[in-house]
Amino acid sequence: MPSKEIPYKIYLEEGEMPKAWYNLRADMKNKPAPLLNPGTLQPLTAEELSPIFCEELVAQELDETTPFIEIPDEIRNFYKMYRPSPLVRAYCLEEKLQTPAKIYYKFEGNNTSGSHKLNSAIAQAYYAKKQGLKGVTTETGAGQWGTALSMACSYFDLDCKVYMVKVSYEQKPFRREVMRTYGASVVPSPSETTEVGKKILAEHPGTTGSLGCAISEAVEVATKNPGYRYVLGSVLNQVLLHQSVIGIEAHDAMKKYGIKPDMIIGCAGGGSNLGGLIAPFMGEKLRGEADYEFIAVEPASCPSFTRGTYAYDFCDTGMICPLAKMYTLGSSFIPSANHAGGLRFHGMSSTLSQLYHDGYLKAVSVEQTEVFKAAEQFARVEGILPAPESSHAIKVAIDEAQKCKETGEEKTILFGLTGTGYFDLVAYQKFNDGEMTDTIPTDEDIAASIARLPKVD
Amino acid sequence: MPSKEIPYKIYLEEGEMPKAWYNLRADMKNKPAPLLNPGTLQPLTAEELSPIFCEELVAQELDETTPFIEIPDEIRNFYKMYRPSPLVRAYCLEEKLQTPAKIYYKFEGNNTSGSHKLNSAIAQAYYAKKQGLKGVTTETGAGQWGTALSMACSYFDLDCKVYMVKVSYEQKPFRREVMRTYGASVVPSPSETTEVGKKILAEHPGTTGSLGCAISEAVEVATKNPGYRYVLGSVLNQVLLHQSVIGIEAHDAMKKYGIKPDMIIGCAGGGSNLGGLIAPFMGEKLRGEADYEFIAVEPASCPSFTRGTYAYDFCDTGMICPLAKMYTLGSSFIPSANHAGGLRFHGMSSTLSQLYHDGYLKAVSVEQTEVFKAAEQFARVEGILPAPESSHAIKVAIDEAQKCKETGEEKTILFGLTGTGYFDLVAYQKFNDGEMTDTIPTDEDIAASIARLPKVD
Repeated sequence: MPSKEIPYKIYLEEGEMPKAWYNLRADMKNKPAPLLNPGTLQPLTAEELSPIFCEELVAQELDETTPFIEIPDEIRNFYKMYRPSPLVRAYCLEEKLQTPAKIYYKFEGNNTSGSHKLNSAIAQAYYAKKQGLKGVTTETGAGQWGTALSMACSYFDLDCKVYMVKVSYEQKPFRREVMRTYGASVVPSPSETTEVGKKILAEHPGTTGSLGCAISEAVEVATKNPGYRYVLGSVLNQVLLHQSVIGIEAHDAMKKYGIKPDMIIGCAGGGSNLGGLIAPFMGEKLRGEADYEFIAVEPASCPSFTRGTYAYDFCDTGMICPLAKMYTLGSSFIPSANHAGGLRFHGMSSTLSQLYHDGYLKAVSVEQTEVFKAAEQFARVEGILPAPESSHAIKVAIDEAQKCKETGEEKTILFGLTGTGYFDLVAYQKFNDGEMTDTIPTDEDIAASIARLPKVD
Repeated sequence: MPSKEIPYKIYLEEGEMPKAWYNLRADMKNKPAPLLNPGTLQPLTAEELSPIFCEELVAQELDETTPFIEIPDEIRNFYKMYRPSPLVRAYCLEEKLQTPAKIYYKFEGNNTSGSHKLNSAIAQAYYAKKQGLKGVTTETGAGQWGTALSMACSYFDLDCKVYMVKVSYEQKPFRREVMRTYGASVVPSPSETTEVGKKILAEHPGTTGSLGCAISEAVEVATKNPGYRYVLGSVLNQVLLHQSVIGIEAHDAMKKYGIKPDMIIGCAGGGSNLGGLIAPFMGEKLRGEADYEFIAVEPASCPSFTRGTYAYDFCDTGMICPLAKMYTLGSSFIPSANHAGGLRFHGMSSTLSQLYHDGYLKAVSVEQTEVFKAAEQFARVEGILPAPESSHAIKVAIDEAQKCKETGEEKTILFGLTGTGYFDLVAYQKFNDGEMTDTIPTDEDIAASIARLPKVD
């Protein structure tokens, strides 16, 4: 074991927890492009958004100028049940790799939702409660977001209706049961409970559903039922805002010990964890106060940054949601069955897309068999069984540490360990059995779905 | 939310972590009765035990006088990956119950094994490595112990052979995959890999196995293969010794904030978590320095303390292990299919049995439907989805807090939250679906198995 002045786990004190979220957009010269009304192609107004989202969340979504937004006490009290999350020095991984690099990870998996999703779920539930709503609706695929929202709604005594993609509902019964234990009603989508669900079932009787369809059902229920709003777990600016708590804690913990990371690595699906992790560091970079290298890691099966195009597109495959300008593979792109369900999204947060476009952020894509090799190596030395999504960041952190071994550089690497893999053991089993494969889209696949992008300009 | 000077989570600093385990037996006037050789009925010697267990572990098993045993640095370094574990003030539960009681729990679930089992697994793996062994064998039922041991062996690069009760191997594939990810070989028991397994399969071709059978196979492999030893995850004195890290941390964290618990509550299967949690507090009570009320909680389906007898018995249903004097329902007692697999053991740690016999410890039994109601209530306000085993302690902690509400007493309650329920969702589903039932053994059932106890006196 290496000698250590820095502990294995750095915990901030409760009193050192962030009192405000950081709104990265306030420091961006080139603001992310606004959401557009798909009918009029005009920027969406607060009035247009408020039948779908809670009022305060609409305000947060549209606020490009306020740098700090206070975290209400009610949310901070909930955060205290599982935050501050540990910043871990990966001494054992460093030792195993025999690297001069210093590796840190911010671990967001020590809560029952198993991921960072809870940071935004509790905020969204709070604002719904504050507005006097009865409940919220959402969709969930792999289930992390649905679990997080169920926990948050249970805490604030809000009704929670989760439309769960039917194939996941059937194949991931354990996730479903966690949500039910927290009092959520979980409906397999498509369902007979909505007009859009009935229509889809009539047209495709045997369908096992899709995220796009589940979104459509959740939005329909939210807009048709008085006292309900729809909530979303990634992509949106408001979600990145709430997730900034990850980055602020990491930043403050490192500062406390005089540590400055050279590179910051996170997996990227819709972008909420990466956006949250890098927020305060990126702010420093944008303000010219410090420099860092930022790396977004995406699956080779769904490479929106590395092989997508920067354009306006629908956020959902059902094409009912607003248009967002983002790096996208096209909303009709269907990624292969990669096991990192949280990264199987065709687009990317508008904020991160703008930063990538402006050269502040790099991106790499990695194949899932390599990702699981890294996950296994990490689990064996660091103890934690990582989620497949998080393991994308592990893979690249290990690669970068290996490069340091070759060059002798003592780089300080920070990566986001977003969650645990306890509900992903079907994927681990495939890997353990040597049956995992990689499927990478062809140029033709991507060109075909990009050709179907909505015409905006 | 209540005002709070005491934080939601009290973490000791890394430098405040225990440097020694506490051996409760050193302070007991009436020592626990020795293990007996089932053939000679004489106390087992170190020489007789060393073909089965590692030498240092044999020494710890037999040491009744040394109060503190140093925790080797290698084990402390591993502990630092997931310890100190948080001592949590259950502010939200108190608020929900509207009780004047102050409730604390020591949470051992924030590690990939999902329970306190890792505290002893890493110690046992370390001593095996130190002795130059190639590997260890064990059995596992529900899988927590097997998972913990797999993680520990992976860390010290030891071979790990786990005999997993066949019905669990098939019904709990996710636990199995965690073990495989950590490099363990997991064999469904009974198997063709051992003489005893072959014999059982020949006699009972369709059997789905039992813990007793899995123990027999693991012991056979350990004793027949040079460089291997057998390890066990509960019941033994050495395991209680390692688990004292739970109680010492809880004791020190409470002391730091000037908190003195009035009652300490833990679930009890083989007794390792309860024995570890109460150790330093019980030591104070035995030495006359302080007084506490201790409550062991067991399932009504397997009530060894509350309905068993205090006598010598086999630790395993296969009747190949040493005889231990303990509260027991008889090694031939077959508990009903309670979902708290970790509590389905016919006997109880000799140390705890002696303390119970001498009146230092109370015991209560609770039914599983009531336990799951408490688990659900706890999960919804405290966020954590508890293991069914741990939920036995939650149930009684809530009951005691309710009593305080009636009497107005401001008691301070500490309970052990041993683990998470992420791999117990089949049980939660039964509860959510209203299909959970309670099965309590009849007096005749218990009398029949007690009548088959070995004749020792």
